[in-house]
Amino acid sequence: MSVPSPLTAGLAERLPELTAIYRDLHANPELSFQEERTAGVVAARLTEAGFEVTTGVGGTGVVGVLRNDSGGTGGSVLLRADMDALPVAEADRVPYRSTVTATGPDGELSPVMHACGHDTHVTSLLGAAAQLSARRADWSGTVLAVFQPAEEIGAGSRAMLDDGFLDRFPRYDVALGQHVISGPAGHLWVRPGVFMAAGDSLRVTVFGRGGHASAPQATVDPIVIAASIVLRLQTIVSRELAATDVAVVTVGAIRAGAKENVIPAEAELKLNIRTFDARVRERVLAAVERIVTAEAAAAGAPRPPEIAPINDFPLLVNDETAARRVITAFTESFGAEVVHEPSMKPASEDFGRFGAAAGVPSVFWNFGGFDQAHYPDPAQPALAVAAGGAPGNHSPDFVPDAVDAALLRGTEALLTAASLWLT
Amino acid sequence: MSVPSPLTAGLAERLPELTAIYRDLHANPELSFQEERTAGVVAARLTEAGFEVTTGVGGTGVVGVLRNDSGGTGGSVLLRADMDALPVAEADRVPYRSTVTATGPDGELSPVMHACGHDTHVTSLLGAAAQLSARRADWSGTVLAVFQPAEEIGAGSRAMLDDGFLDRFPRYDVALGQHVISGPAGHLWVRPGVFMAAGDSLRVTVFGRGGHASAPQATVDPIVIAASIVLRLQTIVSRELAATDVAVVTVGAIRAGAKENVIPAEAELKLNIRTFDARVRERVLAAVERIVTAEAAAAGAPRPPEIAPINDFPLLVNDETAARRVITAFTESFGAEVVHEPSMKPASEDFGRFGAAAGVPSVFWNFGGFDQAHYPDPAQPALAVAAGGAPGNHSPDFVPDAVDAALLRGTEALLTAASLWLT
Amino acid sequence: MSVPSPLTAGLAERLPELTAIYRDLHANPELSFQEERTAGVVAARLTEAGFEVTTGVGGTGVVGVLRNDSGGTGGSVLLRADMDALPVAEADRVPYRSTVTATGPDGELSPVMHACGHDTHVTSLLGAAAQLSARRADWSGTVLAVFQPAEEIGAGSRAMLDDGFLDRFPRYDVALGQHVISGPAGHLWVRPGVFMAAGDSLRVTVFGRGGHASAPQATVDPIVIAASIVLRLQTIVSRELAATDVAVVTVGAIRAGAKENVIPAEAELKLNIRTFDARVRERVLAAVERIVTAEAAAAGAPRPPEIAPINDFPLLVNDETAARRVITAFTESFGAEVVHEPSMKPASEDFGRFGAAAGVPSVFWNFGGFDQAHYPDPAQPALAVAAGGAPGNHSPDFVPDAVDAALLRGTEALLTAASLWLT
Amino acid sequence: MSVPSPLTAGLAERLPELTAIYRDLHANPELSFQEERTAGVVAARLTEAGFEVTTGVGGTGVVGVLRNDSGGTGGSVLLRADMDALPVAEADRVPYRSTVTATGPDGELSPVMHACGHDTHVTSLLGAAAQLSARRADWSGTVLAVFQPAEEIGAGSRAMLDDGFLDRFPRYDVALGQHVISGPAGHLWVRPGVFMAAGDSLRVTVFGRGGHASAPQATVDPIVIAASIVLRLQTIVSRELAATDVAVVTVGAIRAGAKENVIPAEAELKLNIRTFDARVRERVLAAVERIVTAEAAAAGAPRPPEIAPINDFPLLVNDETAARRVITAFTESFGAEVVHEPSMKPASEDFGRFGAAAGVPSVFWNFGGFDQAHYPDPAQPALAVAAGGAPGNHSPDFVPDAVDAALLRGTEALLTAASLWLT
Repeated sequence: MSVPSPLTAGLAERLPELTAIYRDLHANPELSFQEERTAGVVAARLTEAGFEVTTGVGGTGVVGVLRNDSGGTGGSVLLRADMDALPVAEADRVPYRSTVTATGPDGELSPVMHACGHDTHVTSLLGAAAQLSARRADWSGTVLAVFQPAEEIGAGSRAMLDDGFLDRFPRYDVALGQHVISGPAGHLWVRPGVFMAAGDSLRVTVFGRGGHASAPQATVDPIVIAASIVLRLQTIVSRELAATDVAVVTVGAIRAGAKENVIPAEAELKLNIRTFDARVRERVLAAVERIVTAEAAAAGAPRPPEIAPINDFPLLVNDETAARRVITAFTESFGAEVVHEPSMKPASEDFGRFGAAAGVPSVFWNFGGFDQAHYPDPAQPALAVAAGGAPGNHSPDFVPDAVDAALLRGTEALLTAASLWLT
Repeated sequence: MSVPSPLTAGLAERLPELTAIYRDLHANPELSFQEERTAGVVAARLTEAGFEVTTGVGGTGVVGVLRNDSGGTGGSVLLRADMDALPVAEADRVPYRSTVTATGPDGELSPVMHACGHDTHVTSLLGAAAQLSARRADWSGTVLAVFQPAEEIGAGSRAMLDDGFLDRFPRYDVALGQHVISGPAGHLWVRPGVFMAAGDSLRVTVFGRGGHASAPQATVDPIVIAASIVLRLQTIVSRELAATDVAVVTVGAIRAGAKENVIPAEAELKLNIRTFDARVRERVLAAVERIVTAEAAAAGAPRPPEIAPINDFPLLVNDETAARRVITAFTESFGAEVVHEPSMKPASEDFGRFGAAAGVPSVFWNFGGFDQAHYPDPAQPALAVAAGGAPGNHSPDFVPDAVDAALLRGTEALLTAASLWLT
Repeated sequence: MSVPSPLTAGLAERLPELTAIYRDLHANPELSFQEERTAGVVAARLTEAGFEVTTGVGGTGVVGVLRNDSGGTGGSVLLRADMDALPVAEADRVPYRSTVTATGPDGELSPVMHACGHDTHVTSLLGAAAQLSARRADWSGTVLAVFQPAEEIGAGSRAMLDDGFLDRFPRYDVALGQHVISGPAGHLWVRPGVFMAAGDSLRVTVFGRGGHASAPQATVDPIVIAASIVLRLQTIVSRELAATDVAVVTVGAIRAGAKENVIPAEAELKLNIRTFDARVRERVLAAVERIVTAEAAAAGAPRPPEIAPINDFPLLVNDETAARRVITAFTESFGAEVVHEPSMKPASEDFGRFGAAAGVPSVFWNFGGFDQAHYPDPAQPALAVAAGGAPGNHSPDFVPDAVDAALLRGTEALLTAASLWLT
Repeated sequence: MSVPSPLTAGLAERLPELTAIYRDLHANPELSFQEERTAGVVAARLTEAGFEVTTGVGGTGVVGVLRNDSGGTGGSVLLRADMDALPVAEADRVPYRSTVTATGPDGELSPVMHACGHDTHVTSLLGAAAQLSARRADWSGTVLAVFQPAEEIGAGSRAMLDDGFLDRFPRYDVALGQHVISGPAGHLWVRPGVFMAAGDSLRVTVFGRGGHASAPQATVDPIVIAASIVLRLQTIVSRELAATDVAVVTVGAIRAGAKENVIPAEAELKLNIRTFDARVRERVLAAVERIVTAEAAAAGAPRPPEIAPINDFPLLVNDETAARRVITAFTESFGAEVVHEPSMKPASEDFGRFGAAAGVPSVFWNFGGFDQAHYPDPAQPALAVAAGGAPGNHSPDFVPDAVDAALLRGTEALLTAASLWLT
């Protein structure tokens, strides 16, 4: 028998409004550090809900503070949502689909899509903010509603912290955050301890010698070097790590040449690396450098490739005690059948810096966004994604098809977890 | 002892003007079928020289006709220059370097450079036109000065012919054209018979399944497929053709993904293929299709790649008799030590259509653009390019460093060859 | 404070004899199912110790039975050692190194080496048998000393079981076995639950078309196909499995051609696959078939490759309860600092069939064979192997350098674990 | 109208005997430098024909000298046949097929086959020797019948010359030799000038670090390195040479590992390289070294690969004047429709050393061995081989199916060419 938190009372009535916010955000996605419009929507709603609002924190970040000293002994809770979208062209699945384009940091125009569902995070946190404002009698303490830019590039949380976050805003006892996944709406996944991977993104620039497509002998073909690098990088995971080491090495982008009859002088690769411990991370990074250098040497490249960091994500580690409290609260509120303890995820998330910087526990969880028919085993929704039965995060098809249930549960989860520190 | 053609008398005095034209064109390159500004310069100069000028032929092509019935028995000669430039970022070698950018047919903005030296072709033909105009007493007959668009994509000559060229302009007895190469300025290379390769350009689109960079198991990674294709395509030339078959298979462009943490759904390759006979061409095209299809199947791609033609170039064959006449005239005018008979070139050129369409002989030759110090063996300048001692066509460094001598000899060569049919 | 089992009393005095047995076995290794000499040594020693001995069980297997009804309530314990060696050329590290050669199942002569340490297993079990015989007053029940052939090819335990093992010999309450590893002598590693991988070995025969090395165009080069397969197989682990899936895909042998100037008609690959669950195993096997087939198709192979099983190993799962009892006994006897619970191992072992076939618990553990100076962290000796500080199983350098301590602890471990069921 | 040489009169009657010799040789092939039995057959036949016979020249070589001073002014002619066979398993096509096995220089037993047709060379030269002996009235001068060992490894001609050949036997005015090919029996192919490639064979040993197949992280996998080398070597021909350069780089053998569950410590590749000029040869050899070294470095190999020469072949260049004389004689004797001038062949042959060492012209030609139905275009029989319509040299199917016609024409060709210098 589940017992919902009093903070969630009346939430269902807000759903039409939340859905409208969500659709508006979904149709108007913005790339990392370009979240101007989103920040405007957020600031307006927070102001409306009675929060003290500060914008432009760490670029386009927004912080809303609500103090509620109504006699209670509640502490201080940071609730965080991330706001940015991705350079992905959205599939044609919903009427509010994005047709937006924007110029990314590379200077290239690309379509933009909320392919990682941050629009549901923003909406859920706005819903929680509205509830907290409306139901001040049911809690005491301080809430920081943090809307972070640029999570996708691992830079937003650092930018906010570097912008004096800890000095400018109230201290907090716990940091809470969440992410929508491809899983049944209504379900939640929380893992105490190491939850998500460290992430390192690298830009590899390969230097050849350009020339005419018909005279390869006068060139050093950087596309052949780049292709050799891509294939040889596969051996890091397959040969250089133990089967029980957990790591991913992905080449997410490759780019060289414009015209078929010109052999270009350079090629660019963007790598993304996920690891769960420092030893493995160092071994992978060393192998990347070794392989990239040697494959260029194999072709007689005029100079070695350049490897430059694009961004990095810390490990995401949920505080054991705090996470167990959250799991208990979720189980009591929503039922054991919808609360799961997943295995470690090789995806990354920069949320952890809010806990680490303040020296306080943090807890991060996932909530589902899709119709449960896609998922034969709700505890392991990734199986359905792997089998092609449901879209994965970052794909052009990652458009939640159970929006109402997802927003409801996302908002309830924030309120339920927060209430543990606000009473 | 060399005997220059009377048509070249006084040409040296025009050099400052020709150099100025050249530098202006070099600094203002235009992509294929976008040669508006260049066509404007050409039309103005031709008009000034007394030619009847028609613009907009086959898009941006310009045709100037000069009839000179001064009592002689001369025939009719077509002289052709091509006008387009390439999406290459020019190296910083000369003050008049290009900083121009333009949007190509793919909708992408790119830098533009006269990396194939068509600016020297235009300038030389304008120089020849001015001389022909000024020295009408020295020849008789009809000259067609043809400034063609879009040679780089093999489409300009066809576009002009498809635009009624043969009906709208006087018939001609011979078609003459030339191309600057990485070789000592002052030197000329003419090959009777098969001179340049047939060219086929293909766009290969590889379909995978996109997703999050940390969850490759839920995707089919098109970048790994594309890399496998690039490497396996090398085996066409190395394994599937005889050592004595002459062919080149180049992947000139590869493009997939934008962000390192998204595995893209597709990858695009642009291929360029050069062959010298139909049997080899068919074998190569069949092997490309086989390899591309199988490498996608190896990854379990959701559907096979698409292979679409981008453009094609015909074989370039110099008429044996006419080419021998031109070689003799060049030798007598400039000295045997600067006239060479090269081996077949795997580069392609769409000039041949002007001769083939009219059923008349055509002759095409190369002239050098660079300081002779780069080339230990002037007969084989490609060796210096292969050794890295001189830039090849289409490279960011292909900026002639002996401009005056190159323009002088390029103009002289047109006049000397043309005079064979104009007296 | 550790309390050794009474069964081990006086064992140290046997060490010179055990070391002599070990050195003799090490110098005379035999390939799978060829363990004639080893079986002879074993049978003689068992007979000497008063066991009822049966030879030729499942080929070259030996079973010794010792019944001891001395008033106790002890049960029945199966103790198993494996006898076969590997086709590896031993490095020159010890005076008793192997210089033996033998003809393997492929008909090829190769050097033979106890590169997996089965000589220590045989010796330890002979030591335990001698102790059990000598110290009948300290236990009661029945002991089956099982010396198995052909563990390396996953076939020996099945061969013995298929040879009527369960019917011909006394039933047992538990099956115990052990394996020496690269780790500090004296230490033991036991993991309750899934301990070692399922293993599948496959022979892949690639068909091309042979011919003269100078005319590849008249052939289909199977070496290029095989190389492409090797590289593409890497993507199974790197791209087709989740980072948290545990699997290894190794090409352990490749063979094609004899003479450099003949392109051979065929190539052969031997694959070894390790997995820990059925879903992953099936996905890997399907991917192997897909890749192998497609890479041959990419080359236009005249027919698809053949994939045939060489052998297979079951998962090794330690009974949770029995394993915990063994861990407790080891800890009490030898001290907690030398007893470790390792992570799952991707190596395979066919021991598990003895427990599964009889429907009784089985427990399998590892013991160290080397000087502890090699291992900065005794709990994770694999780190030292990975770092190159210590030789791994199957390498030419896998020659225990702490033989006395290893044999002592190996024998003690068998006796200590067995005593749990023999009192 | 063709006019046969008088030396060939009555040759047809010898055919049954020649066919018997051929079948015997075919059924009893011997590897390079092991041609003991063949040499015995040859020596017996030459002695029978009245030649002075020396055996054991350069190992197993045989030289027969026949002086005929019958009043003429004839010169001295060297006729050469090579005797060795290949480690190839013969297909089951003829009753006299080889079932012979032998141990090669690597110490490995392999099947042996006359897969390059040297048995037809030996038989034809024995036929010519018998005719020369029988028809001394029709010629004058000196004939050296040279039966050379070890042509397949490029070593036999050098071994004979190093064994004092020029000093021990009469000097000669011309050296003549021939090779059977996949082409219509009765036809001949002669190319003045450069005819066959220089050949370089190399053994590449790749060093990794061996270990257990389940723990690749503790190894450096030499099979992955070897596979990467094989694929990257393809880029030498496809990318590093001009399309008009003629070269072949073949990996004819690859060998690593024995058992699937051991990652071996080493891998071996045997390379065969064909080139037609010194510059290309040097570029290829440098690229091989660069690629091999870098691909090992990419894997972190403990030491760089070793590259050692196996053998080498010189360019085969036919003397222009002598070859034109031979072509004329062939055309007059056999008809123009069966005499062809082929393009350069990337195969190699060590015959050229006999001419070069003596400073005299040499002429080498090909003769066909198969039914003409296989070859739509007799001038280009290689097209039929490439299309799979006829077997190529070195394939298991290279068993001439028009033996009588082949032996007849091969013998006639030797006699007809020799007669030019013997009258």
